[in-house]
Amino acid sequence: MKTIENRTTIRKYSNRELSNTLLRELLARAEHTPTMGNLQLYSVVATRDQEMKRKLAPAHFGQPMVENAAVVLTFCADFRRTTIWAENRKGNPGYGNFLSFLNAATDTLLYCQTFTNLAEEEGLGTCFLGTTIYNSKQIIDILKLPKLVMPVATLTVGYPDESPKVSDRLPIESILHEETYNDYTPESIDRYYKEKESLEENLHFVEINKTETLAQIFTDIRYKKSDNEAISVGLLEALKQQGFLK
Amino acid sequence: MKTIENRTTIRKYSNRELSNTLLRELLARAEHTPTMGNLQLYSVVATRDQEMKRKLAPAHFGQPMVENAAVVLTFCADFRRTTIWAENRKGNPGYGNFLSFLNAATDTLLYCQTFTNLAEEEGLGTCFLGTTIYNSKQIIDILKLPKLVMPVATLTVGYPDESPKVSDRLPIESILHEETYNDYTPESIDRYYKEKESLEENLHFVEINKTETLAQIFTDIRYKKSDNEAISVGLLEALKQQGFLK
Repeated sequence: MKTIENRTTIRKYSNRELSNTLLRELLARAEHTPTMGNLQLYSVVATRDQEMKRKLAPAHFGQPMVENAAVVLTFCADFRRTTIWAENRKGNPGYGNFLSFLNAATDTLLYCQTFTNLAEEEGLGTCFLGTTIYNSKQIIDILKLPKLVMPVATLTVGYPDESPKVSDRLPIESILHEETYNDYTPESIDRYYKEKESLEENLHFVEINKTETLAQIFTDIRYKKSDNEAISVGLLEALKQQGFLK
Repeated sequence: MKTIENRTTIRKYSNRELSNTLLRELLARAEHTPTMGNLQLYSVVATRDQEMKRKLAPAHFGQPMVENAAVVLTFCADFRRTTIWAENRKGNPGYGNFLSFLNAATDTLLYCQTFTNLAEEEGLGTCFLGTTIYNSKQIIDILKLPKLVMPVATLTVGYPDESPKVSDRLPIESILHEETYNDYTPESIDRYYKEKESLEENLHFVEINKTETLAQIFTDIRYKKSDNEAISVGLLEALKQQGFLK
């Protein structure tokens, strides 16, 4: 995994074909990721058909990667396969609850990230679309996801046609707590965010967003309180619809 | 990542010391994992102190790895650091909602898995403890996690003192769906689970659990409906307590 230090999100893809053989091989290798009780509580829906990509695009707010990538992978928390298996084997499955959703989502996200690491090592580029849980009901409809299947992550995958600068990250001190949570103070926040806030690209980001601070871009323009609250309602409804919440 | 094919969960660790330098280096490298808006919505609490491990152990149902591993890492979905940052920068953070929890949990689990991939490549052994979300309120108390911080995963980490057999996995056909969800039938379930069910270790697993089928171990002994429902109540309460749910 020597690629991890230089990895960047890839939003522009070349026309080079991504073979089904390679895709399946990478998805199969990623199956070695830890999983609850070796149940593998996930499914992946692969979208290659251009018409299907066009249908999915609005659910991802029209981000161009969806239509331009070789393949769009929707990773779904899936207790359906396990449930049908158990029903056909005289078991009494009881996975229509919130714990089971979070267990399956955990399995799915761990699996998704091993796939990403393997794909990047292979020279592929990926973009993680967090929008999957913003418009989950649309995605459920388009991909025809039955009960006990909930989309939690989407990756666009293809060969890169750009090489963006590696993004800055916070110092590990700001993330790692020894023994108990070491709460943040205005001083430690200043220290941890100083480098990020002084980077030329972030100063430029503030300028084009016409905010006073970098943080304001994330609280006042993107990921706004009112949006987060409205989307939370839809997300909880989707979990109910898929049978994971009463 | 040539190690992925041969990886196994490690529950027994040697006495070989795991240096803080290596641990921090691996955690820092893992920061290159994709993250929402580059906000890095996670924190890690490292438990090395034997007394703290003893306190944590019951929350993980007394599994011996907690007390025996060199270090126990609790990965937390964390919107607190970002919130304090924004408050100190004239922003209007609004992350006390379910969408924000799931966004932060996603960031955290992706980060956790890259760490696992890197640690295993380094020759370390890890065990993923799904129990973190079973007894989250206990863990919150012990690690003194404030509002907008929720534990979602725990890894025990150390140098391996065992080399278990690689676990079986389902064929990729059973996980991968083309264009739309290809629902399971009794026939496809039989085909996909045939190899798993006929493995000697799984036949033995059925024998010692005194069930009729392999699936019944997971539905009637482990991960039972009544347990899942009771634990779901506590998990939703913990999310409310941490400010992620109304």
